[in-house]
Amino acid sequence: MNWIQAARAEKMNPSVIREILKVTEKPGIISFAGGLPSPKTFPIDAFAAACATVLKTDGEGALQYAASEGYAPLREWVAQSLPWAVDPAQVLITTGSQQALDLIAKVLIDKDSKVLVETPTYLGALQAFTPMEPTFVSVASDAQGVDIADLRTKASGARFLYILPNFQNPTGSSMSEARRAELSATAVQLGLPIVEDNPYGDLWFDTPPPSPLTARNPDGCIYMGSFSKTLAPGLRLGFLAAPKSLYPKLLQAKQAADLHTPSFNQRMVAEVLKDNFLDRHVPTIRALYKSQRDAMLAALDLHLAGSGVTWNTPDGGMFLWLKLPRGLNAIDLLPKAVERNVAFVPGSAFYADAPQLNTLRLSFVTASVDQINIGIAALANVIKTNLQR
Amino acid sequence: MNWIQAARAEKMNPSVIREILKVTEKPGIISFAGGLPSPKTFPIDAFAAACATVLKTDGEGALQYAASEGYAPLREWVAQSLPWAVDPAQVLITTGSQQALDLIAKVLIDKDSKVLVETPTYLGALQAFTPMEPTFVSVASDAQGVDIADLRTKASGARFLYILPNFQNPTGSSMSEARRAELSATAVQLGLPIVEDNPYGDLWFDTPPPSPLTARNPDGCIYMGSFSKTLAPGLRLGFLAAPKSLYPKLLQAKQAADLHTPSFNQRMVAEVLKDNFLDRHVPTIRALYKSQRDAMLAALDLHLAGSGVTWNTPDGGMFLWLKLPRGLNAIDLLPKAVERNVAFVPGSAFYADAPQLNTLRLSFVTASVDQINIGIAALANVIKTNLQR
Repeated sequence: MNWIQAARAEKMNPSVIREILKVTEKPGIISFAGGLPSPKTFPIDAFAAACATVLKTDGEGALQYAASEGYAPLREWVAQSLPWAVDPAQVLITTGSQQALDLIAKVLIDKDSKVLVETPTYLGALQAFTPMEPTFVSVASDAQGVDIADLRTKASGARFLYILPNFQNPTGSSMSEARRAELSATAVQLGLPIVEDNPYGDLWFDTPPPSPLTARNPDGCIYMGSFSKTLAPGLRLGFLAAPKSLYPKLLQAKQAADLHTPSFNQRMVAEVLKDNFLDRHVPTIRALYKSQRDAMLAALDLHLAGSGVTWNTPDGGMFLWLKLPRGLNAIDLLPKAVERNVAFVPGSAFYADAPQLNTLRLSFVTASVDQINIGIAALANVIKTNLQR
Repeated sequence: MNWIQAARAEKMNPSVIREILKVTEKPGIISFAGGLPSPKTFPIDAFAAACATVLKTDGEGALQYAASEGYAPLREWVAQSLPWAVDPAQVLITTGSQQALDLIAKVLIDKDSKVLVETPTYLGALQAFTPMEPTFVSVASDAQGVDIADLRTKASGARFLYILPNFQNPTGSSMSEARRAELSATAVQLGLPIVEDNPYGDLWFDTPPPSPLTARNPDGCIYMGSFSKTLAPGLRLGFLAAPKSLYPKLLQAKQAADLHTPSFNQRMVAEVLKDNFLDRHVPTIRALYKSQRDAMLAALDLHLAGSGVTWNTPDGGMFLWLKLPRGLNAIDLLPKAVERNVAFVPGSAFYADAPQLNTLRLSFVTASVDQINIGIAALANVIKTNLQR
């Protein structure tokens, strides 16, 4: 049979992370690899109550086909939750925020369109954009965020800059207020659209992050958010807020992609969100993740201080970024770590080009504090053994 | 801000049906327009029990990120339910079968690829394929299915034939066994891949439809199915079964599109499916829809026999296809019908090219028998008034 695949299929590749996760599914492994929220944070009882209520009071609505835009009360909640003036008519409910990336790619990326990304950036975005065959251009980043001078040299003709300003995946670092202000002004000056992805912004530990880029220039940005980290990822509920000029095409892409996000899930979450549930729930997630970050930092300090290995101190989110001394390759280290029952993601997976081979991503949210202590000790052992060679 | 849309966005258009549905949302209207399953068929109690069980016994799994392939027990159920030998490893769970169309388009359609469709065909497929910019070629169809002679003249170089053999959307008609056998043999001879969409196959009234095209040549077909018509569309659960050579790329497209279909919904449905639930449930849907089809046929006969208007007698599914005398345009008729509180979809929406303007689609499943009697009387009145002009 003459199955001929599209040219874009050649460029599509399996997720390195998902392949790694398969390797690390051996029993007893301590995984710092996946970006899996701690299941302790899932409000199971609230979901059970919401399911019962929704099916009792609006079962037919929850189980029927629905508008592609999303469930009106949920769109209103999203609009009201955002810290700038958003009309619910600008909110599109998506099947996880991953789907927002797919819709944005379809509407904004032609073959060979230039798309600017941070260095490093979210692997899932690279995967979602790739089928539309863009040319990725990495903008240099430092501890404050993207390098504005480098951005200026690369922005010409770009369709947009894709950026995660808060507790970024993979590094866990955030853009400073000064850098946000400078980026926003520069984007306006250059006419450069911004796609702002904010799945982790609510997971701050001590102080909330500076205001979103979109709040500074709503017509120049598409904003993406998610309920995956504040409620649960298994419901696949995210959203985008777009300028009114772009909304109709994003909506048409949504219709074509899956008609609408499950009506039942949207009503379940709208029910859970009532009575300011997140105001009570999210602080418990912050406290848990902060304690796990602290445990990982303490364990790293105990086992790797002075070794030449360096790491950052994320102010929120789920990830921490480790740099090995130059010459050590995290990809080579991974099978040795798995032998010792500990897993991570090599940082090279997160670069659109020129990967830094001596980096790795550690999630501090999935494993318990005890597992963090054991796992970091094992990882440090593997690293130090290889340093000595 | 320099938002530049992709060339494909120009080709994307809002769903005619969804625009019509908005017009017909006026209170009191009897709608034969939407393809909405009767809410009476939704097993709300079974879903409520399943939600409670899933959250109690496997809440963490139901709410966590999951494999892109889908929930293993559900994939096994699908594989076992299909009437040919299917390895669960060939089954991909999708966010409604609409998503399967999107994934297939990404993997198999290049710009200007030839894609063969029936005349008329499912509008949602045209919408899902369009962003990948194919050239659609309509293959003539008669009461038995696609015209094989016409197919032979058009098949050269086509990426695939997209076809709904059972109680097709929009016409409600099915392919005969003889035509299926001929099509299958012709496709093998020509090396023409088939994408077989089967959302309605379980909704037969008197006898099950002939076996699927895929069963006759599994390596030459991608098969698509759905739980939207046998359980409920609001959960957005569908699936595809693909040849092993194509599966990896479809899976990668799925990962990039939304990571995975909601874990919770997959477990809910797997729970409901236990103990052969569908064997008891689906016959009740068949009986209901058959009674509503009979009511619509009787009302059409009562009001339109001898008027020059013709219609078919579907053996299952949700739709019936009406032909007005030549010269009458169903698009012009729609606002007049809406004035009389009855709605339908003009058939022209369902043609990839050369629309038959005198056709219209009537759904007999959403409205009750009383509403069908009132609505068909009103529609017949509008048609006859316009015939006389």
